[in-house]
Amino acid sequence: MASLEFFRLQTREEVLALYPRFPPVGVEEVDLAGAWDRVLAGPVPAPEEVPGFLRASMDGYAVRAKDTFGASVAAPAYLEIRGEVPMGAAPQRDVGPGEALRVPTGAMLPSGADAVVMLEYTAEHPDGTLEVRRAVAPGENVLQPGEDVRRGEVLFPGGARLRPQDIGLLAALGVTHLKVYRRPRVAIISSGDEIVTLSQQPAPGQVRDSNAYLTGAQVQDWGGVPLIKGIVPDDFTTLRTALAATLREADLILVSGGSSVGVRDLSLTAIKDLPGAEILVHGVAIRPGKPTILAALTKKGEKGAKPLLGLPGHPASAAIVMEVLGRPLLNRLAGLEAPSPWGGTAVALLSRNLAGASGREDYVRVRLRLEEDTLWADPILGPSALLSPLVKSDGLVMIPLGVEGLLRGESVTVTLFGR
Amino acid sequence: MASLEFFRLQTREEVLALYPRFPPVGVEEVDLAGAWDRVLAGPVPAPEEVPGFLRASMDGYAVRAKDTFGASVAAPAYLEIRGEVPMGAAPQRDVGPGEALRVPTGAMLPSGADAVVMLEYTAEHPDGTLEVRRAVAPGENVLQPGEDVRRGEVLFPGGARLRPQDIGLLAALGVTHLKVYRRPRVAIISSGDEIVTLSQQPAPGQVRDSNAYLTGAQVQDWGGVPLIKGIVPDDFTTLRTALAATLREADLILVSGGSSVGVRDLSLTAIKDLPGAEILVHGVAIRPGKPTILAALTKKGEKGAKPLLGLPGHPASAAIVMEVLGRPLLNRLAGLEAPSPWGGTAVALLSRNLAGASGREDYVRVRLRLEEDTLWADPILGPSALLSPLVKSDGLVMIPLGVEGLLRGESVTVTLFGR
Repeated sequence: MASLEFFRLQTREEVLALYPRFPPVGVEEVDLAGAWDRVLAGPVPAPEEVPGFLRASMDGYAVRAKDTFGASVAAPAYLEIRGEVPMGAAPQRDVGPGEALRVPTGAMLPSGADAVVMLEYTAEHPDGTLEVRRAVAPGENVLQPGEDVRRGEVLFPGGARLRPQDIGLLAALGVTHLKVYRRPRVAIISSGDEIVTLSQQPAPGQVRDSNAYLTGAQVQDWGGVPLIKGIVPDDFTTLRTALAATLREADLILVSGGSSVGVRDLSLTAIKDLPGAEILVHGVAIRPGKPTILAALTKKGEKGAKPLLGLPGHPASAAIVMEVLGRPLLNRLAGLEAPSPWGGTAVALLSRNLAGASGREDYVRVRLRLEEDTLWADPILGPSALLSPLVKSDGLVMIPLGVEGLLRGESVTVTLFGR
Repeated sequence: MASLEFFRLQTREEVLALYPRFPPVGVEEVDLAGAWDRVLAGPVPAPEEVPGFLRASMDGYAVRAKDTFGASVAAPAYLEIRGEVPMGAAPQRDVGPGEALRVPTGAMLPSGADAVVMLEYTAEHPDGTLEVRRAVAPGENVLQPGEDVRRGEVLFPGGARLRPQDIGLLAALGVTHLKVYRRPRVAIISSGDEIVTLSQQPAPGQVRDSNAYLTGAQVQDWGGVPLIKGIVPDDFTTLRTALAATLREADLILVSGGSSVGVRDLSLTAIKDLPGAEILVHGVAIRPGKPTILAALTKKGEKGAKPLLGLPGHPASAAIVMEVLGRPLLNRLAGLEAPSPWGGTAVALLSRNLAGASGREDYVRVRLRLEEDTLWADPILGPSALLSPLVKSDGLVMIPLGVEGLLRGESVTVTLFGR
């Protein structure tokens, strides 16, 4: 039986090291208003400098700094107010020695002026004299041209995922369109005679197709587009046909179920039979997730291969394999170069001893709990066929390979579920 | 001038305490495949129990546990294999004393059996005898009916945002449709004579409308739908007309710019002049963000009011006010009861001393940096008119009111940007 062939368990690192053979998906152009959360297909250089001119960074008066030197509440300086600079327009006049122009925040600094005295350190006298109660240094409360961004500097490298502030900076520079990677399309096939649709009442021995919906939501969460392809019975020809059909439209194929050493395991033989198929991994040294399959599907005449990931049938196992192996694969296809290492982790103290899985990395579901000032990670145990322990959890703690276990009170890094 | 009226600065807590007067937006029904990241409009009870029958949780043999008592490698128990239970079907026969049936993971347990012996602790002899090398207890490797979910138990309370594993559990229970809150529609108006569109080349004194795109992306990030309404010049009638027009379609109105004590500040008077308008806040004890405005707009005959948030004009200030005050307001409108307290924070050590803002909560942008095993928060300083310090940052550290400052090496909680 194909599924009983010998495959050495591969480590997580060994599996991740195979991903570079799968090229990122194609590129499309988007409007800046639709660019949030998208991944840049190439570096974006600054088309101009920011600010483009000397700008007041405070409400106040544009002055020559040296006219204010030595000014204090006890000994104010007195300047002549010669009008104001309106917002959004070039100043109508210069600032000469002993003169001041009112400026709102953001306005262009008039020629001659080199600093802004903040409103709160001044008083206007009825005769148009400005009383200045604090000295300013040249450049004070003023933004220099190019202080924020130099022309031509790389604002964002290719492979960066755009956050709101990144969108703001691109808008400030007049970048209205961007080349980004398409969102990867992920076909999800549920295999197994025991699987029925959501609207069916499962007969004895049957379960509803929860994995497709769970993995589909994970794919959405991580920026992909799920294509739920339905349920395929444990039949070689049907499964092979379904897999071959998704190859055309999907960038990644997920097959859930059928990858454990079950009596009717057919996934592996069906995958092997696809044109250009190569089984790279059959068995990973993680718990849960041991029966995971990774295959490369190469189309004749094409350079890169498309990946197929065979997920365990248990929902919690499938979800954890997706988090540990599926998410980095999706990131690779999405062109994401360096996912934020901070988003999605929490440091907590383990609330009980945990034994590791001999010879495998062990992923333990935990719930976080704040007690006074301490963040505790409470392990949520339960068979991986059950979904509710996963629902009760906030994230995963990993017990590394070769570590016997973790002790109560030990500090652990929790990988939080979600983006 | 209206904007110079006396308003006591309100604390962040005082502002947040005003939000309950704004009711959540309306409800809509969605298909489960579109329910990820949506907020439940009411509690969801379990329509059935999970599992619905005794299930094998391991590949192996369904047995009567007592037939294996005392079995070991040295003294195995021997049982008679009477066939197998196929996946997705009811067992065709019972397990009698001294008998065993092959079962794959997830299959229904045959009547008579009360445990599963794992495959690895057995051997099949050619004559159909099963050798059992380890005893099992009753219930071992078996899921009990209702072990995961009891019928009628509340799976999720109203106000919960659905994560992938939540979707998985709902699928397992056959929940195909859900009532969720609409995504709040957020109108974004940029006010100011100095603002030009992205495709325009700013003349001296002008800047492009970056705030609308930045806040728009934040709204998307937090689950709302941004409606970018364009730029309105500093003109009372035009601004008032633009505000009144958005009132019809938006659940929340954001007005960026024009809320500082600038010389041409008109937002406040225009807002006040709207029908049913009440200014709740004009000035918040946070830095940046002091000139923030919150108004309630009550339509005649309607109970709840719609909120309007006036944001400072500087992009970094606007972004931080959105993070500190806008996001909780959006969550309130979205019906989100308890946003995850863990997602989006990191604990790090401050890499330099920071002075607080006297009389205000101070929000400092920081970049995270991992050095050996220590996570450092490096403050990124720079005027709030500049966007690049925000782009270089990973999140915010807050110096509380009444605290003089934070010391280098102090442990701080960083609120990470993004969801």
